[in-house]
Amino acid sequence: MSKQEIGMPGPADGCSPGLLTAPLDEDQAVELARVFKALGDPVRLRLLSMIASRAGGEVCVCDLTPAFDLSQPTISHHLKLLREAGLIASQRRGTWVYYRLLPEMTDRLAGILTRPAGRPVGSPAGAEA
Amino acid sequence: MSKQEIGMPGPADGCSPGLLTAPLDEDQAVELARVFKALGDPVRLRLLSMIASRAGGEVCVCDLTPAFDLSQPTISHHLKLLREAGLIASQRRGTWVYYRLLPEMTDRLAGILTRPAGRPVGSPAGAEA
Repeated sequence: MSKQEIGMPGPADGCSPGLLTAPLDEDQAVELARVFKALGDPVRLRLLSMIASRAGGEVCVCDLTPAFDLSQPTISHHLKLLREAGLIASQRRGTWVYYRLLPEMTDRLAGILTRPAGRPVGSPAGAEA
Repeated sequence: MSKQEIGMPGPADGCSPGLLTAPLDEDQAVELARVFKALGDPVRLRLLSMIASRAGGEVCVCDLTPAFDLSQPTISHHLKLLREAGLIASQRRGTWVYYRLLPEMTDRLAGILTRPAGRPVGSPAGAEA
């Protein structure tokens, strides 16, 4: 299995297949599922939304932890899963770690979930089992 | 917790907060995580892509099962999770169940993952913990 950066269909170029236009192959599905799985948790979604919406684009972990009734190690574990999925990046500066969104990944997810313009879902052939 | 149809932020109207523009509240995060969790599995992603890309917009479960080394009950279980997440609908006709995409849900997901036009991620204030 190729393991480039994230081997998922990349519709950002406007021609690669998305989730809705052609059946995914197994490798694509495994890689993509990993990212969706990272999003499949309420704490991680809240963390991601806090990071993505922060003015300045960067959040100290020390500003994230107080929003949750969870220990800092637990928060750090959730942040690690978001980072491993390619959704956020981190940088340690002094005592604290700072997080920022990697919008390339959310752009890719948005792209593969977007119906192709002018072509209703289900119109192309090619979904043979 | 409100449990309308799916109580997630709905940016389809262009003004509701998405995942990237404001911190999600707990209820929104729980509902949205449920949908992403349904997508966080390779078999379910492949099933969804097969259903979404099928010419005619509808697939018989009998055409889905042969693509996998899995039993029909296992496939049916995955399809049930996709259905419960609001991603697909099903209809029994005679012996078989037929599945189709509910594009409203993938549209919503694409919308909340899309950066607001003309406004870089992180520019709005409002990410207080």
